Amino acid sequence: MILEEFLKKNAEEIDMELYNLFGAVSGELNKASAHLLLAGGKRLRPAVVMLAAEIIRKGSSRDILPAALALEVTHTFTLVHDDIMDGDSVRRGEPTVHCKWDEPTAILAGDVLYAEAFELISKTIAHDSAKIKSVEILARTCVEICQGQHEDMTFEVRDDVDSYEYIDMVGKKTGKLYAASAAIGGILAGCSLKQMSALYDWGYHSGIAFQIQDDFIDLMASSEKSGKDRASDLREGKQTLVAIKAKEAGVDLSGYRKENLTDEEIEEAISKLNKAGVIKEVEDIAMEHVKHAKDMLIILPECEERKLLSDITDYFITRGF
Amino acid sequence: MILEEFLKKNAEEIDMELYNLFGAVSGELNKASAHLLLAGGKRLRPAVVMLAAEIIRKGSSRDILPAALALEVTHTFTLVHDDIMDGDSVRRGEPTVHCKWDEPTAILAGDVLYAEAFELISKTIAHDSAKIKSVEILARTCVEICQGQHEDMTFEVRDDVDSYEYIDMVGKKTGKLYAASAAIGGILAGCSLKQMSALYDWGYHSGIAFQIQDDFIDLMASSEKSGKDRASDLREGKQTLVAIKAKEAGVDLSGYRKENLTDEEIEEAISKLNKAGVIKEVEDIAMEHVKHAKDMLIILPECEERKLLSDITDYFITRGF
Repeated sequence: MILEEFLKKNAEEIDMELYNLFGAVSGELNKASAHLLLAGGKRLRPAVVMLAAEIIRKGSSRDILPAALALEVTHTFTLVHDDIMDGDSVRRGEPTVHCKWDEPTAILAGDVLYAEAFELISKTIAHDSAKIKSVEILARTCVEICQGQHEDMTFEVRDDVDSYEYIDMVGKKTGKLYAASAAIGGILAGCSLKQMSALYDWGYHSGIAFQIQDDFIDLMASSEKSGKDRASDLREGKQTLVAIKAKEAGVDLSGYRKENLTDEEIEEAISKLNKAGVIKEVEDIAMEHVKHAKDMLIILPECEERKLLSDITDYFITRGF
Repeated sequence: MILEEFLKKNAEEIDMELYNLFGAVSGELNKASAHLLLAGGKRLRPAVVMLAAEIIRKGSSRDILPAALALEVTHTFTLVHDDIMDGDSVRRGEPTVHCKWDEPTAILAGDVLYAEAFELISKTIAHDSAKIKSVEILARTCVEICQGQHEDMTFEVRDDVDSYEYIDMVGKKTGKLYAASAAIGGILAGCSLKQMSALYDWGYHSGIAFQIQDDFIDLMASSEKSGKDRASDLREGKQTLVAIKAKEAGVDLSGYRKENLTDEEIEEAISKLNKAGVIKEVEDIAMEHVKHAKDMLIILPECEERKLLSDITDYFITRGF
């Protein structure tokens, strides 16, 4: 199966399951919790959970479906809270929860999703020992995501962030949840420790590549295409890898740090970055993580799902603007 | 052992364990997470976890200590987020997390504690099936606490809240976490379903009594004694049981809904409430829940720890201002 087909089918299945669970909730808090969860998305983390499980044990993805949902719910909880902190007003083409409702409701909506993620893990059909191990990994991952988000915020008021700090930060903020998705899928399907470790590392490095690409998308894609405010990183002067490498290359982006940035100004910035070789340099770093991630898969049983996991890594850095 | 001695010894033990876990953390986010956790408190929820476990299996409280900490950590996470929503500046005599740091850090600090609670459950020495059941109960409880907090906020802009809605709200906001504390202590020590149900109901009704008393303390205790701003409920016009019963009795409290309330004005309000029989009526409702709670304990093995659990219920409505 080609990746595109798989992801489409998987997203439809996850959308349906989420709709069954959260589509008919009553009360404003539950509606606020369901809002972003039901606003679509590529459902990449559930796809990773399902594929990792299938690699380890054919037919296991049906049993561990609640865990796949748990990883999407966890991701959504972090987005709801991040949007408050970052002051973002649009996500997946919808108003963010704190804009549609209010900040207290958005804090609680995120907290509700947080709990529901752990509840979903507990409802998976798997050995209790595998479920407890999954709870432990998911909990540690949530701590690391929070640390990554906090570092991301502190980077905004620093001007000396280097590329190693950036990679470590996005590793926590994005890499760890892909790592947990793959590892939890494998664990619940009964993988060995060595397999778990390989799946975890695959997810971690794929996630870093994903986040580097995400920063490119923020810079290059139109608001209509990305469903988010365009170039918010540039406007806010965020310390993305592009910004760090731009600084190293002597490209001054400070003039673009303003609220109302026109598309022309954004194009001008991209042109400067291209000329200075910054875009190429950042792409090369992403490619290193892609290679590292794909190398991890070699110890796993060769099968269609392993190929799809490998294709996902490629997709992470080729998905369009 | 008398309750006071037990609670003192338990609080010292829990303080020490929390200090060992969170006392030497580095980084601002981890410090913000540890701040309120290390600011003392009566450690009542861990006490309940430990007692429930001992009732079911003598000597089990040592094994399930991480779960006792998990319940305190959960409680602390809810306080950190609630303080943001309620705009409170002082808690346990310390500045609240969002005041000492900032709102984004406080959101993340609560999120970190949230994950650590589940991680602690996974580290308990108990059967995996008991741990997964505990995860499930804790997760559902967190959803209910959020719902209770959201209802509490919506009550502020309503003037038709009745006492049944209030009891249901505090049952979610406070009762359920005591219920979970008792049930999880019992489950991890190997209790039967019937025993779990009794422990859960004991905690639920004790917690309701606790919250009614907490509202009294907010009204009557000095800031120095409670470690919180005095009479914040009165100032904010919160729909406490006192306020609801005052309205039913024709006592107008709207004049006290202002930022700078003097101690004389607070005493005047209390005097009006006493004269109208409101205080007595609310105390009677609390006593009904105390009786219900204590009745639940009868099916459990008779022992010193069962007596202490019963004494805790009494303590909940007698603790001073």
